[in-house]
Amino acid sequence: MIRIALDALGGDYAPDVVIDGAVRAVKASEGKFQIVLCGPQDVCAEKLKDLGYEGDAISIVDAPAPVAMDEHPVEVLRKKPNSGLVTCVALQKKGLVQASVSAGNSGAMMASCLMLLGRTSENFARPPIGCIIPTAKGQMVMVDAGANVDEKAVQLVDFAMAGSVFAECYLGIENPRVALLNMGEEEHKGPAVLQETYQLLKGSDKVNFIGNVEGREVLLGGTDVLVCSGYTGNVVLKMIEGFYILHNELFGKIDTPAGRRFDELWDYRNAGGALLLGLNGTGLIAHGISDAKAIEQACLAAYRFAANDTAKKIGEKLNGIKQA
Amino acid sequence: MIRIALDALGGDYAPDVVIDGAVRAVKASEGKFQIVLCGPQDVCAEKLKDLGYEGDAISIVDAPAPVAMDEHPVEVLRKKPNSGLVTCVALQKKGLVQASVSAGNSGAMMASCLMLLGRTSENFARPPIGCIIPTAKGQMVMVDAGANVDEKAVQLVDFAMAGSVFAECYLGIENPRVALLNMGEEEHKGPAVLQETYQLLKGSDKVNFIGNVEGREVLLGGTDVLVCSGYTGNVVLKMIEGFYILHNELFGKIDTPAGRRFDELWDYRNAGGALLLGLNGTGLIAHGISDAKAIEQACLAAYRFAANDTAKKIGEKLNGIKQA
Repeated sequence: MIRIALDALGGDYAPDVVIDGAVRAVKASEGKFQIVLCGPQDVCAEKLKDLGYEGDAISIVDAPAPVAMDEHPVEVLRKKPNSGLVTCVALQKKGLVQASVSAGNSGAMMASCLMLLGRTSENFARPPIGCIIPTAKGQMVMVDAGANVDEKAVQLVDFAMAGSVFAECYLGIENPRVALLNMGEEEHKGPAVLQETYQLLKGSDKVNFIGNVEGREVLLGGTDVLVCSGYTGNVVLKMIEGFYILHNELFGKIDTPAGRRFDELWDYRNAGGALLLGLNGTGLIAHGISDAKAIEQACLAAYRFAANDTAKKIGEKLNGIKQA
Repeated sequence: MIRIALDALGGDYAPDVVIDGAVRAVKASEGKFQIVLCGPQDVCAEKLKDLGYEGDAISIVDAPAPVAMDEHPVEVLRKKPNSGLVTCVALQKKGLVQASVSAGNSGAMMASCLMLLGRTSENFARPPIGCIIPTAKGQMVMVDAGANVDEKAVQLVDFAMAGSVFAECYLGIENPRVALLNMGEEEHKGPAVLQETYQLLKGSDKVNFIGNVEGREVLLGGTDVLVCSGYTGNVVLKMIEGFYILHNELFGKIDTPAGRRFDELWDYRNAGGALLLGLNGTGLIAHGISDAKAIEQACLAAYRFAANDTAKKIGEKLNGIKQA
């Protein structure tokens, strides 16, 4: 039985929507996984009672310390071992759960997973966040979605490798096309770090590098893996959310095949969180603004990642690539 | 009479769509402006004949040299004085036209305007591109849309001032809200250069700085002026174009008040090009993918900028701000 640890106090609308999401997730799980809520025992128990949940697929581990969104990641790990976030990852480290999910402080989640679970490869210095984003043609992987800032070219090359393996393992795309998000197609365009990364990827046989793509091509499906700085990736991801919200405000739900497909692909609540790549284990970061549906989807995604051994496969591939 | 110089060979679909756009623009001009086509005399004359244009609101200045999209900006200025692009700006320098428009090599257009027209202030080192982008609430200004890369914090502060003045002069927004595009609202979030810029703007009384905004808030109308690197601005602009194309592919034109408003605001062909800020004169950069409608709109925007003396007003304000 796969168990997923869920940070009950993580997210802008925690704990209510998180616990609601947990109940939805186990109902949708068809008995395939259980959830371990990590948060204040009394609050969690009370909320489960309010929701009328009486099953045994959700258990609670008392972890009362709250973590603010702007707390320093390493400080959280050091000073708040009894927070929901750190408790999730600590349980995973002990093998008591197979995945951790938090919609809270993403830097702290990253630091906790990195320090407690460890890297799959010592060479892979700064693990990025890989996320699935919608395009006109379906889905693609974007790396990094916001774990890092001010990356060097060699780190962006790591992101390219991790993203390529993620797209292969999780989306089932063979030999995925990998592109750099830039402000022009020509190789000398853009910030110096991207020009340097271009040269490193161009000479590499480790990924199927197709060159630079611009913002327009990204949305139209011009690549399978989009490589960018954590800062830029975060802007891209949030713009996609903003566009979906704006579209809904203007037009509401459009009940045509295209409308339903748009809704399925673009509703960020379906995305189910983003995976930390290059770690020994499954750590998922859900959006801070997650509602119950988003938390449910994040738990379902965590189950798929864990059941599919995605993190391990990515680690093996990355090590293979690194050593090759 | 205001005269606008138009680079006949600039853009992915030049010269056909450019000349077609010129004809459309003078038809829409109500006699308020004339267009000087700068390009190969015979090609321009032939195309005007094909289009059946026989009026006197379009003249031709022979400028046969083509400029490739990836030619080095300063080389273009030095080696191709007889290109359409450089000829436009040279005519403007001589006072023969009041604005220049090119959909060609934007770096070369920037360099030509900078070298030939000059800066409004010596302090304003790297003039950015200001463009109007759509939001859920209407329109906002974004600076820089792609003229610069690898900016320092003091340059981003310049962008903030230029954008603020542009929003005031052209969109008529009093005391516009100015925000940094970042990956979180907290002041210590994001790349080091944005953290430094935040501190400089926070302590400044020259603009109405409201802090950081994320990609989602941008589209929802969370600020009047968005400040970002030229690289990031280019990604944002092209993603907005991508959203519009994707929406149209999925849903076509939606004939409701919301649909018509979306079309009016989001169709990038209505945007009419982007203005170079902080220069002694009106230089407009239109999208490389411009069609005839986009060129028409760029000419109409150039007319409005020139008639409104926008560049001069921005210059005076910037100098006032810089000296204050």
